[in-house]
Amino acid sequence: MRKSGLKIAVIGGGSSYTPELVEGFIKHYKELPVTELVLVDVEAGKDKLETVGRLAERMIAAAGVPIRLSMTLNRREAIAGADFVATQMRIGLLAARSRDEKIPLKHGLIGQETTGAGGFAKALRTIPVILDICKDMEELAPDAFLVNFTNPAGIVTEAVIKYSSVRTVGLCNLPIGTRMQIADIYGIDVARVQTEMVGINHLNWTTRIWIDGEDITRSFLSKAAGSSGLTMKNIPDFEWDDEFLQAVGALPCSYHRYYYMRNKMLGHMQEKFQEHGTTRADDVLKVEAELFELYKDKALAVKPPQLEKRGGAYYSEAAVNLIRAIYNNTGNIQTVNVKNNGVLPFLPDDASVEINCVIDAAGAHPIQPSAPVTAHMRGMLQVVKAYEELTVKAAVEGSYEAGLEALTLHPLVGDAALAKVVLDEILQENEAWLSRFQ
Amino acid sequence: MRKSGLKIAVIGGGSSYTPELVEGFIKHYKELPVTELVLVDVEAGKDKLETVGRLAERMIAAAGVPIRLSMTLNRREAIAGADFVATQMRIGLLAARSRDEKIPLKHGLIGQETTGAGGFAKALRTIPVILDICKDMEELAPDAFLVNFTNPAGIVTEAVIKYSSVRTVGLCNLPIGTRMQIADIYGIDVARVQTEMVGINHLNWTTRIWIDGEDITRSFLSKAAGSSGLTMKNIPDFEWDDEFLQAVGALPCSYHRYYYMRNKMLGHMQEKFQEHGTTRADDVLKVEAELFELYKDKALAVKPPQLEKRGGAYYSEAAVNLIRAIYNNTGNIQTVNVKNNGVLPFLPDDASVEINCVIDAAGAHPIQPSAPVTAHMRGMLQVVKAYEELTVKAAVEGSYEAGLEALTLHPLVGDAALAKVVLDEILQENEAWLSRFQ
Amino acid sequence: MRKSGLKIAVIGGGSSYTPELVEGFIKHYKELPVTELVLVDVEAGKDKLETVGRLAERMIAAAGVPIRLSMTLNRREAIAGADFVATQMRIGLLAARSRDEKIPLKHGLIGQETTGAGGFAKALRTIPVILDICKDMEELAPDAFLVNFTNPAGIVTEAVIKYSSVRTVGLCNLPIGTRMQIADIYGIDVARVQTEMVGINHLNWTTRIWIDGEDITRSFLSKAAGSSGLTMKNIPDFEWDDEFLQAVGALPCSYHRYYYMRNKMLGHMQEKFQEHGTTRADDVLKVEAELFELYKDKALAVKPPQLEKRGGAYYSEAAVNLIRAIYNNTGNIQTVNVKNNGVLPFLPDDASVEINCVIDAAGAHPIQPSAPVTAHMRGMLQVVKAYEELTVKAAVEGSYEAGLEALTLHPLVGDAALAKVVLDEILQENEAWLSRFQ
Amino acid sequence: MRKSGLKIAVIGGGSSYTPELVEGFIKHYKELPVTELVLVDVEAGKDKLETVGRLAERMIAAAGVPIRLSMTLNRREAIAGADFVATQMRIGLLAARSRDEKIPLKHGLIGQETTGAGGFAKALRTIPVILDICKDMEELAPDAFLVNFTNPAGIVTEAVIKYSSVRTVGLCNLPIGTRMQIADIYGIDVARVQTEMVGINHLNWTTRIWIDGEDITRSFLSKAAGSSGLTMKNIPDFEWDDEFLQAVGALPCSYHRYYYMRNKMLGHMQEKFQEHGTTRADDVLKVEAELFELYKDKALAVKPPQLEKRGGAYYSEAAVNLIRAIYNNTGNIQTVNVKNNGVLPFLPDDASVEINCVIDAAGAHPIQPSAPVTAHMRGMLQVVKAYEELTVKAAVEGSYEAGLEALTLHPLVGDAALAKVVLDEILQENEAWLSRFQ
Repeated sequence: MRKSGLKIAVIGGGSSYTPELVEGFIKHYKELPVTELVLVDVEAGKDKLETVGRLAERMIAAAGVPIRLSMTLNRREAIAGADFVATQMRIGLLAARSRDEKIPLKHGLIGQETTGAGGFAKALRTIPVILDICKDMEELAPDAFLVNFTNPAGIVTEAVIKYSSVRTVGLCNLPIGTRMQIADIYGIDVARVQTEMVGINHLNWTTRIWIDGEDITRSFLSKAAGSSGLTMKNIPDFEWDDEFLQAVGALPCSYHRYYYMRNKMLGHMQEKFQEHGTTRADDVLKVEAELFELYKDKALAVKPPQLEKRGGAYYSEAAVNLIRAIYNNTGNIQTVNVKNNGVLPFLPDDASVEINCVIDAAGAHPIQPSAPVTAHMRGMLQVVKAYEELTVKAAVEGSYEAGLEALTLHPLVGDAALAKVVLDEILQENEAWLSRFQ
Repeated sequence: MRKSGLKIAVIGGGSSYTPELVEGFIKHYKELPVTELVLVDVEAGKDKLETVGRLAERMIAAAGVPIRLSMTLNRREAIAGADFVATQMRIGLLAARSRDEKIPLKHGLIGQETTGAGGFAKALRTIPVILDICKDMEELAPDAFLVNFTNPAGIVTEAVIKYSSVRTVGLCNLPIGTRMQIADIYGIDVARVQTEMVGINHLNWTTRIWIDGEDITRSFLSKAAGSSGLTMKNIPDFEWDDEFLQAVGALPCSYHRYYYMRNKMLGHMQEKFQEHGTTRADDVLKVEAELFELYKDKALAVKPPQLEKRGGAYYSEAAVNLIRAIYNNTGNIQTVNVKNNGVLPFLPDDASVEINCVIDAAGAHPIQPSAPVTAHMRGMLQVVKAYEELTVKAAVEGSYEAGLEALTLHPLVGDAALAKVVLDEILQENEAWLSRFQ
Repeated sequence: MRKSGLKIAVIGGGSSYTPELVEGFIKHYKELPVTELVLVDVEAGKDKLETVGRLAERMIAAAGVPIRLSMTLNRREAIAGADFVATQMRIGLLAARSRDEKIPLKHGLIGQETTGAGGFAKALRTIPVILDICKDMEELAPDAFLVNFTNPAGIVTEAVIKYSSVRTVGLCNLPIGTRMQIADIYGIDVARVQTEMVGINHLNWTTRIWIDGEDITRSFLSKAAGSSGLTMKNIPDFEWDDEFLQAVGALPCSYHRYYYMRNKMLGHMQEKFQEHGTTRADDVLKVEAELFELYKDKALAVKPPQLEKRGGAYYSEAAVNLIRAIYNNTGNIQTVNVKNNGVLPFLPDDASVEINCVIDAAGAHPIQPSAPVTAHMRGMLQVVKAYEELTVKAAVEGSYEAGLEALTLHPLVGDAALAKVVLDEILQENEAWLSRFQ
Repeated sequence: MRKSGLKIAVIGGGSSYTPELVEGFIKHYKELPVTELVLVDVEAGKDKLETVGRLAERMIAAAGVPIRLSMTLNRREAIAGADFVATQMRIGLLAARSRDEKIPLKHGLIGQETTGAGGFAKALRTIPVILDICKDMEELAPDAFLVNFTNPAGIVTEAVIKYSSVRTVGLCNLPIGTRMQIADIYGIDVARVQTEMVGINHLNWTTRIWIDGEDITRSFLSKAAGSSGLTMKNIPDFEWDDEFLQAVGALPCSYHRYYYMRNKMLGHMQEKFQEHGTTRADDVLKVEAELFELYKDKALAVKPPQLEKRGGAYYSEAAVNLIRAIYNNTGNIQTVNVKNNGVLPFLPDDASVEINCVIDAAGAHPIQPSAPVTAHMRGMLQVVKAYEELTVKAAVEGSYEAGLEALTLHPLVGDAALAKVVLDEILQENEAWLSRFQ
């Protein structure tokens, strides 16, 4: 891939996360000499794009790297000739997220941005947009990689795999975050920690952990049971039960709490919702407003530390690592979302899975897991993946039937009558984005 | 198989269902000339065996067929040289069933004999016994067929498939019952109705229905949505939602109500439990007491009509149909529980599945489904089958870990903390039968 | 399917086999009341069509059944509204077959009509025509069944499965012939013989044989080793080696001789070819000429016994059995060629396989084999099936590359340089029919 | 794995290849600090062991590295506590190889050490010995890696996978040799060449080739067609046909010549055999005698350049690379033989495959191929793998039947009568090593 210029387009460039990403490109400029960085956003995000873009310009100037930055509302222009297209957009903005979280909660269900009925709603809004982007890429940048950060990343990546010829890698900061958390627990440098992760996005298990090449999985699980810090910013740090971890034989990811600690998590959410009428989206709205105030400060020429509260820790790390490995054909190992193609033989070949891959100039190549994927993991992955498959179908075909099948099947919904009520509300509240549903 | 004598051993011969079975053998004596019928039971069931056995003797005498009936507490004697061994035993009797139903209910979960945590408890008690029976069969009747009616029939059959060389077919009256119900709705003879069923025991869908060879599936689903009578005796006759049936594209089985109508079913059970402190087991206990009073009547020489209330409709029909087809090598089609072996490629090869089979002297041969098994069905079957796999493992190995993984995975449990509480209670209440758990 | 009228179109109606088929329809008129029978052929076969058609008319008249017979060169007219379309055409007539057999022989390879390079050539000519027929059916008789008798039947059926939505069953007289041969060896009625066959067309094994429901496979194999008569008319009756049959554990089909007895068969063919310059096609040409002379005799109103020499024994039996079972929704078991769909999990899902199926109004439903398919069978099926897959690709895409890959892979060719020479000759000699190859 | 001492046992330590291996250990001592190197051989190889051992001692002394070398005839002693056990033994020595090559040739078949009937004979002799070694390892060095270089490496590795719990990696110098040959053709350093190889041992294809991360596969294939040097020492350098390479779309390995150029290769072998009565084994015998004369020279303290003629180029490279990567947990990519486990989904899970793997302290982890494995490759791999499966069965069970099935199935044998003759001769000539065959 090494060539004269390197162009990266960031869709949803007006996101509050962008300074994180820009910091990464600056820091790793030597191995990843970005020539052209285009931030693109929609009309409604014009002001935010302007604010963030100006900050990015100041950051680049301060760092003294020759990255050419531009901002645009013309997506096709941004994509044309790009080597990488990174997507981090949020259809309907945080207001839509707030509704996604509240509809399920009103009916006694987990209301979460990416998991369960909330993630379902987000997928319906996002998939048509990502497929439009792919069409542009097929035409204007057919050799580019789509680095998809947009949630629900697993479902969105699966839609791209199934309905587009674009080369794509779905990316999440959870895998790298988990490795960091493990390193923190041991108080060691993350470079000494190796992990094997297996599953699907926001539902993976760390099945093996090595420190300096020595397998310490079992002893880690005992340690993990009493440890705090094994979670992401946006998920309460409820501790894992020792006997349960030993039974599962692997470290569940942060999002597993919505399944394994369903009652506790639901109680936690409902308390907040009933007392304050708010959900996580509302908190984020506040943080974002504060961030944009900071971003406007013309004296600011670095990523402000307050961004960390936002929840996207290691986002830049993950994205830059991936793009660097592809660009430099390094052949190192990262946990990303790719087409299954039989690496987890109990899931469909065209499903997206989140798994350790060798990353090189040809993309991400899944490595066969060395630890057994147990019946417990398999069953959970299969049912949630079938839900995801139906969700993709519902979004692409605008199919009410597929939507009803999807929600009824989801372990966090289950009841068909309830699924129907929730589905009807989701369709109504999101009518503006769901033209495919008549 | 046709030979001089035909010996059938019925384990759990003291069951109230036995007159049903005996009636079947009498009715079909011509095509199935049973020479020797042995009813065997355990010490604790001695009186019931005596009562039922005497009734059976009177029935046979009244019918004038030359079936030699005997009763024994010696299981090995009963099995030796048998051509068919039918099992219909209930480990721990109805008292254990009552506990199986109440433990989950106390914690806000569906409390059902075969589905969810209740069925899990029953499986733990039953599997060690069935495997002991298999050992006897391997030694004393290696060519015999095990016709397993013992619930949870799918899980029990899977244990036999995995841990024994005995030829087995798992049998349930639900498939034949469903065909009868469909015939009733159309007011036609059941012989004109053909069905394709697919799934696992107590979780199958009727994916295609033909009347006189014409596929009427779609029109039937509309009809089914407004119809009563599509259920078994022991499951409330809540009607199916039309839009939901159209989305699923197939008729769910009666037991699907515990999943699809979870909230309504739970409410129904909790109402009864909170008001009267009872569950279905308690009703059955009463019915059984009445039945045994009737059975003692020396004037009675036929199956009393009151048996129908018990819930085992078509039990005799199903069992005799199966045994006749094997004995006479008929090659007709029945829906039974067999080793998967790839006929549902998304389930493990050694899983038990409930599926249309050709029945002949060599056993039951699965027929490839003609209707697609949708992503919705697949996901549901996979997660419940993974639960069943873990349940078999827990029962055979006495593994607490596998038990905890199983219950946590079950869609009707889900929460790990709750699973642990329920598991602990189940193990404690059933200590007498669970020597494999230390 | 039962309805007012039943229309059957026979493509290649001018074939010498047609009287066989007509005899079957007459004989089974009661269960299969054909209203309209249309014989269709191409311009070049007009005279033969006329001759055969007249004979058929006389046969029908003599039998006194109300079948309306017609002859036409208009294929679309024949197909329109048909319930069944049977194909028995031979593209390029016997002259092409003669070349198919001679090209390989010239290079020291088995030269056979359906197996090896000869069958490859025939497939290239036939597939474009069958797909044209399917297009007509999709338009003019979308609910009809295509009963494909045209060789190589397995490859041709696979092309239809992959490139058409037409419902099809591939049919061969070998399975029914094998059952007849087994019955003959035991001197019993064929109705008492049950067989399990597994494989692909012209490459199947009879893995289990029952007489009156008793499994006699092993003892039969010893008997088979010393028996003559286990072959089709067109294949020399070389006997099987006892040790070899015991090793394989199943009865190979007649065509297996081209593989297992390669050297002997090749010697036999080369002798004839070198001495007389002829192959089987030349013999058949002679037989056919004689047959057509007989057919012209206006006094003839039955199928002449001389037809048996032609090699299509039981053809009528097989075809009428299949059509009857579909028409009457009988649910009986026949060995036919259908889409694999996982019933042989080691072959691609969209491959055609020849396997025991339940036949009913919805078509042919594969039954899971009860006998294990051994590694030996698996390996042989896989390599020949991969050859078939490449052959279909070559024919449909007109791909020289796929053709070269196919022939090189075939166990009866093997050498790439030789494959190339043979391929080039085949393409040259068949130029008239291979417009897809530039 | 890093710890105080590193012990490596070399079984077949008296081989003429050993100086190659020792040179590797010396050269890479820094990253692979071998503490203890034990050469072990059988009584019959005592003299050679002595000669080679002395040379190795001199090499180590001259290099000044603190490797403790020992020689022994006590295999258990050598294995006890080893970290790596490398096997490079030859059961029956070169005399047996000579017979392996000549028996098939006498009957007009390819007579080759590892491919076809010759490799079959070698496998029968070798498998019982390797499984004995594994038993010792399970007892005396349960955590050690078995690095198997013994041919036929794919079949031998498969036996270990199926019948032992030992961790094993099968190794061949062909993959690294192919990369070297490609680099030579381009005149560049091998480090710039990346390859994707897929298949089984001695039957793999290089499906993708990158230089500096750029995919040059297609242009390489045109280059390869006219290039010499794409072969191993022991295989004639016949050039590939351009059209054929384009059709296959990948570079066949050297051993593919026995299949694709069957007639030419056979002619070449027969010429030598008929003229001189010799095969490759006889040449090697001569080279070996010369080498051992050189080895005896007490002035010699380096690997003599004449060893290169022997055919094991890059053997040391391959072995040391593998052991280093495991020892240092490097996570780099090498092409080795491992358990399939679904990475090639069309081969059995417990088959050995030769494929790109990530190598780290936990062993070799297959990477999913990025290039499609075509139908042509698949068919060839499947039939040869089924032959290998039957060969392992024959060797382990001493089964004549499995042996006959294996040879008949092999594409280079084919005819059953011929297979039987060859099998009988092989069993007779190797009686001394085949006690499992009665």
